[in-house]
Amino acid sequence: MTQNKPTILTGDRTTGPLHIGHYAGSLKNRIRFQNDHNQFLLLADTQALTDNANNIEKVRSNVLEVALDYLAVGIDPEKTTICLQSHLPALAELSMLYLNFVTVARLERNPTIRDEIKARNFGRDIPAGFMCYPAAQAADITAFKATVVPVGEDQAPLIEQTNEIIRKINATAHTSVLPAVKAIIPQTGRLPGINGKAKMSKSLGNAIALSASADEIKAAVMQMYTDPKHLRVQDPGQVEGNVVFTYLDAFDDDTSTVAELKQHYQQGGLGDMVLKNRLNAILQDLIAPIRERRARLARDPGYVLDVIRKGTEKSRDLTQDTYRDVATSLGLFMLT
Amino acid sequence: MTQNKPTILTGDRTTGPLHIGHYAGSLKNRIRFQNDHNQFLLLADTQALTDNANNIEKVRSNVLEVALDYLAVGIDPEKTTICLQSHLPALAELSMLYLNFVTVARLERNPTIRDEIKARNFGRDIPAGFMCYPAAQAADITAFKATVVPVGEDQAPLIEQTNEIIRKINATAHTSVLPAVKAIIPQTGRLPGINGKAKMSKSLGNAIALSASADEIKAAVMQMYTDPKHLRVQDPGQVEGNVVFTYLDAFDDDTSTVAELKQHYQQGGLGDMVLKNRLNAILQDLIAPIRERRARLARDPGYVLDVIRKGTEKSRDLTQDTYRDVATSLGLFMLT
Repeated sequence: MTQNKPTILTGDRTTGPLHIGHYAGSLKNRIRFQNDHNQFLLLADTQALTDNANNIEKVRSNVLEVALDYLAVGIDPEKTTICLQSHLPALAELSMLYLNFVTVARLERNPTIRDEIKARNFGRDIPAGFMCYPAAQAADITAFKATVVPVGEDQAPLIEQTNEIIRKINATAHTSVLPAVKAIIPQTGRLPGINGKAKMSKSLGNAIALSASADEIKAAVMQMYTDPKHLRVQDPGQVEGNVVFTYLDAFDDDTSTVAELKQHYQQGGLGDMVLKNRLNAILQDLIAPIRERRARLARDPGYVLDVIRKGTEKSRDLTQDTYRDVATSLGLFMLT
Repeated sequence: MTQNKPTILTGDRTTGPLHIGHYAGSLKNRIRFQNDHNQFLLLADTQALTDNANNIEKVRSNVLEVALDYLAVGIDPEKTTICLQSHLPALAELSMLYLNFVTVARLERNPTIRDEIKARNFGRDIPAGFMCYPAAQAADITAFKATVVPVGEDQAPLIEQTNEIIRKINATAHTSVLPAVKAIIPQTGRLPGINGKAKMSKSLGNAIALSASADEIKAAVMQMYTDPKHLRVQDPGQVEGNVVFTYLDAFDDDTSTVAELKQHYQQGGLGDMVLKNRLNAILQDLIAPIRERRARLARDPGYVLDVIRKGTEKSRDLTQDTYRDVATSLGLFMLT
């Protein structure tokens, strides 16, 4: 964890165990990033509260689940710092500070917020914490002085807003106390659910969990949405929107064979079962070792807690230093 | 500071030295309260930032000024805990938590916020921190588990909103982790400025500071707004809206003489100068010892800093305990 590596901040809301959509979209990259980045993973329980204040038990119980997922896929606590958001007071302090540098109108204009308000049917009764979360996210990122943040394409505006806040803080402080942030948008976009619906999500029942059993994986692959008009093997089939192909693109390393299969499918003569068996074999190979490691770790929650505790302690010092830097640069009264 | 005394939380935004309006409206009461209450005074620098993010130097430089005013008027650090808001991370943590339990619509409906938005010409470009300040104020009050909060009449809705948040937290936690709060509205309302304008305020130039020199006090009293139609001594004069009488009501302990003077003034035959000389003498007597103590303390900023430091340390432990209580009761994941 040398000073020369760029710092990366990412993480997950603790609202459910992770699934293969997370694996393809973020976890795979994080396993790579940890070798050449100073990587912090935030177990984002307080952010999860912004729209789960009425279901805190869900937020609580998934802290360990997400941490288990991290360790099971190969996040190495010697290389990556795993920390718990609610136990880092400096994040709240920076959030409250940043809220003075952003207007209500600007928060409401954020497309991510606007879309999610619509998706969640929040209307005017949006919790204030939810509306403020772009400022809280800016606090998370800057508290670690991260310069790289991997985000989904739909979240790019949040990084723009973070940089806006950074510029305002630096301008007010007359010094570059906070570094600018670069968004990395992963090659593999958000995976659709097995039913072809926009988003894979445990709550929508269209996900394959990283802890899925062999039978669950097989059942999910067999149910998978393909081309509803592709009724007979000899018929030409559609590749676009065909979830099996989308998943093969995400998980099959043999890209030239996948390209051939696509061509064959489009011409006709290739049955869904051939593809599904191929995908099933790939996902079984991917998930089996993760599931086993996860089950082993789950029997030792003390170890997992210890990882979180150590990562959180290290992060607490670091984020407090940042708050102190920012407060001092802005010219707040400092007692010590 | 026994456990049996009720806990009172109050304080001032650090945006300017205090004036005799503060003395009549709050400081006088606090000197009494400290004998039979567990009293905390918050130097509210972070709240001051909610509408002073572009003038942090003002907020910073007035921390010591307000603390000096407290000590000069007779706030006893052995009886009252003076603490600095920006150095109490639990206040930010509780604020961020509470923002999930209040909607944007509810914050905007708060009459105090609505009026201040109007008064400050904020419109849609209101800083988010300003809109969120009712939740932050609820955090301040509850962090100390205060049950009594003295507020101006115009701020009573903020206490209502604090109690709403308290009820929601307690309902979610299924336990009374936070006590309900009672607002005390002081008998002496907000003093008008010496020009008769609604509010005494240093920035409006119509205030008499607690550090005012004898000459400044006299000049202010002589400029004071009376009854513009009371041109000759023998004319009947108006008492309502006559600032000299308003101040005599606030500062002259001899209420029966003040009642006689009012009657005489209304009948005619009593000149403004008689009243102004009386008020001047009273204010000179009030302010002289405050000014002297203040000047003496100002020569020993180390002592003042030490008072703030000790009060803030004590408050830090106490407010952190409250955050921990609230987080535990709500069922957040706790690392230790």
